[in-house]
Amino acid sequence: MTEQQKDTLVTAITPQSEDFSRWYLDVVRRAELADYTMVKGCLAIRPYGYAIWEHIQQALDSRLKATGHVNAYFPLFVPESLLSREAEHVEGFAPQVAWVTQGGTEPLEERLAIRPTSEAIIGTLYAKWIQSWRDLPVLVNQWANVVRWEKKTYPFLRTTEFLWQEGHTAHETEQDAQEETLKILALYKELAETELAIPVVDGQKTDSERFAGAVRTYSIEGLMKDGRALQAGTSHFLGQNFAKAFEIRFQGRDKSLEYAWTTSWGVTTRLVGAVIMTHGDDRGLVLPPRIAPYHVIIVPISRGNWRETVLPKACEIRDRLVEQGVRVYLDDRDGYTPGWKFAEWEMRGVPVRLEIGPKDIDKSQVVLARRDTREKVSVPTEGLTDRVQTMLAEIQTALLAHARRFRDERTRRTDSYDTFKEAMEGRPGFVVTPWCGDADCEASIKTETQATIRNLPFAETERPRHRCVRCDRPAVVYAWFAKAY
Amino acid sequence: MTEQQKDTLVTAITPQSEDFSRWYLDVVRRAELADYTMVKGCLAIRPYGYAIWEHIQQALDSRLKATGHVNAYFPLFVPESLLSREAEHVEGFAPQVAWVTQGGTEPLEERLAIRPTSEAIIGTLYAKWIQSWRDLPVLVNQWANVVRWEKKTYPFLRTTEFLWQEGHTAHETEQDAQEETLKILALYKELAETELAIPVVDGQKTDSERFAGAVRTYSIEGLMKDGRALQAGTSHFLGQNFAKAFEIRFQGRDKSLEYAWTTSWGVTTRLVGAVIMTHGDDRGLVLPPRIAPYHVIIVPISRGNWRETVLPKACEIRDRLVEQGVRVYLDDRDGYTPGWKFAEWEMRGVPVRLEIGPKDIDKSQVVLARRDTREKVSVPTEGLTDRVQTMLAEIQTALLAHARRFRDERTRRTDSYDTFKEAMEGRPGFVVTPWCGDADCEASIKTETQATIRNLPFAETERPRHRCVRCDRPAVVYAWFAKAY
Repeated sequence: MTEQQKDTLVTAITPQSEDFSRWYLDVVRRAELADYTMVKGCLAIRPYGYAIWEHIQQALDSRLKATGHVNAYFPLFVPESLLSREAEHVEGFAPQVAWVTQGGTEPLEERLAIRPTSEAIIGTLYAKWIQSWRDLPVLVNQWANVVRWEKKTYPFLRTTEFLWQEGHTAHETEQDAQEETLKILALYKELAETELAIPVVDGQKTDSERFAGAVRTYSIEGLMKDGRALQAGTSHFLGQNFAKAFEIRFQGRDKSLEYAWTTSWGVTTRLVGAVIMTHGDDRGLVLPPRIAPYHVIIVPISRGNWRETVLPKACEIRDRLVEQGVRVYLDDRDGYTPGWKFAEWEMRGVPVRLEIGPKDIDKSQVVLARRDTREKVSVPTEGLTDRVQTMLAEIQTALLAHARRFRDERTRRTDSYDTFKEAMEGRPGFVVTPWCGDADCEASIKTETQATIRNLPFAETERPRHRCVRCDRPAVVYAWFAKAY
Repeated sequence: MTEQQKDTLVTAITPQSEDFSRWYLDVVRRAELADYTMVKGCLAIRPYGYAIWEHIQQALDSRLKATGHVNAYFPLFVPESLLSREAEHVEGFAPQVAWVTQGGTEPLEERLAIRPTSEAIIGTLYAKWIQSWRDLPVLVNQWANVVRWEKKTYPFLRTTEFLWQEGHTAHETEQDAQEETLKILALYKELAETELAIPVVDGQKTDSERFAGAVRTYSIEGLMKDGRALQAGTSHFLGQNFAKAFEIRFQGRDKSLEYAWTTSWGVTTRLVGAVIMTHGDDRGLVLPPRIAPYHVIIVPISRGNWRETVLPKACEIRDRLVEQGVRVYLDDRDGYTPGWKFAEWEMRGVPVRLEIGPKDIDKSQVVLARRDTREKVSVPTEGLTDRVQTMLAEIQTALLAHARRFRDERTRRTDSYDTFKEAMEGRPGFVVTPWCGDADCEASIKTETQATIRNLPFAETERPRHRCVRCDRPAVVYAWFAKAY
């Protein structure tokens, strides 16, 4: 392969404007985030993609622990009879279940579902563990794989198997459980904004999008660069539905036997897809520093006897940055030009590129290039670490601001159905509109425009004075509609 | 429930000398490490048990990353045709596979194995990812669940589903792969000794215990308190077997097309079982500080108006310890006596108990009690954090030394089969003995004594001058025999 060909390979990503979906698939493949396997809809998450997930995990796990949650692990298998105990739950999930029917050489007496979610198996255990109000609250989370047999899959966003965390809590009172549900939603929102630089709309789902078996479902919703919304996390208030189905009862403070109030909530590896689609551009990935596998890529300018002159200085700089907690990769590979490396690491979304050549060393400086703005600046090696850390913080802030501006520009308020329909063509966005609260009306809007209610945002506190955007009835709420992933 | 009854509940653990297996099951249940579920052989790992696993994970993960390994994630499902590609591999694992035969509402065209291990699925991906010697080595690890349909299960040690890490590496040369195999084994040994305080014997497995499809398997073996050995980690040199089965080929430095050399290696949640059985005593768990969920349990002496007098001081001490990275739990629950709490947290194996009462406060001191020796000592609150950290380090060292002494006392060298057989009765241990190298002889010894060759330790460098312990042929090696889990 010639240098020329290599250059072409790196840069040949379908432009977003030409075909967003092709762009996305190109980035996933070229940046080595994930790969298809021989099992339909099952993805291998490659090290570079998995490192992003690990940073998201750590950021969330520490937040969960700081708020009193602990991790545990529950079985992968859910006997069919257990899954069926909560009627709405099994109805919602059964069509998507992968079934184990044989163990070793023997056919099984009862089919085992690969968990599509773990309320059922966890419910039976909570019934054993929870006896008294003193045992409450139970605040447990698990990091696990789940399987939902999907007809149409898409890397990270919708795969047959995916990784997630699922929190399952049990409480003494309805109010405690409701508070937990909302506390977690707020935590998800803060995580998305602080770590992933994704601004999200938090609110309640309508009944049509409620988790199977829940009383209320809440979500956070981001807006991707093609104008489609993406549900980035959900938190469910389960009431006493699962407690009744699985007999989770406790002796209350007044000695009476009561059903517990439970919640569940989760975010998944689709967050990696959300990051790609929120920040990426025609050159490839753009990663928020806080979850980037590498903060800084060092590219030594490989001229003359650079291995003797430039490389030692580059190593010294790397070591100094690493010491201060900066994640650095020094690309000292032979056989690739600096230009090829620039393009390669831009495509892989590394927030800051540090270039160093013989002339820079003479001047005791290096060149820093920002991935998001592509600005280049020469900075003295003296005080470099501080400068890099400041730049990383600036990038993190800028990405969130940029995404928020994009989201706000793509959010229209209207009470005209014509304007609504028009907005949903091409690269849509959110449309905020008065809605009557009727599920049939919601379904008709979906049929006619492909738009669904993402949620009823908490921020929409005013009761609409207009009529429903589609029907003639009085509106009860402002709903945020969008075409969604 | 009276205080009396509560006291009884905590302490009612079957003594080790009476029935070691009952003792183990009692500890697992009472310390809330794990619980049975409705699915045969599948365990729920409860938060206290899972926290131990998390500390083991973190300790190993940081070591793997420091040695250049990266994490990734591969699918749970392995199509039957893939699993069958390596003949010896499928023969070894097929009898233990759980099979998915239905996805959603449709029967599958091809059965999917729930991964019993991931060589097959990873092999097909490495075949795509590895093209040139420049792509090597590939040093990938995954943290995952696996399923092996076991007839007889035992918490942590042998369960149908378990958690593990599995490393899968590919190399340019045979020597590189062999070095990786041994590097990881050494890392496992260091992990077991440094973190778990479990002394282990490292060496090569005989053919009868070789991983299905491997050229050579190495293991580390610990000795449990009942005198039975436990395999605590394995590392496999796979030669080119899997590379040939899955077409993992690369263009070498001389442009020729070559098969890669691969390795795989893993440790599992059985390490939690190993910790319990290595250090536990009749009072319950004894946890090495480095992997203990809590280093210190603070028990305020609850007399009089202790909530106003003692508790604030206890909180202050907790905060000071936590600030210095000590993991502390302050048990300020009402309705339990200090004595009950002492027994409870001893049973749960917390390395250090800190007692504080009104008299201690008067004297500006606290009482520290070591779990391993049960020694109690009054220490001034001034300089407490240093004192606690020193004590934790001492406990960690003492546990390893204690376990090593136990292991050494239970390791006998003999070339007499009568002595061998006698040693294998009751609470056996290791027997080091000359062996002819013949698999049939090894099998006969197993039939006659239940002892198996745990491994051929690296430390046994001398060629035996005696004949095989059982048959009349010349011995070729010293083998370490034991009854094993």
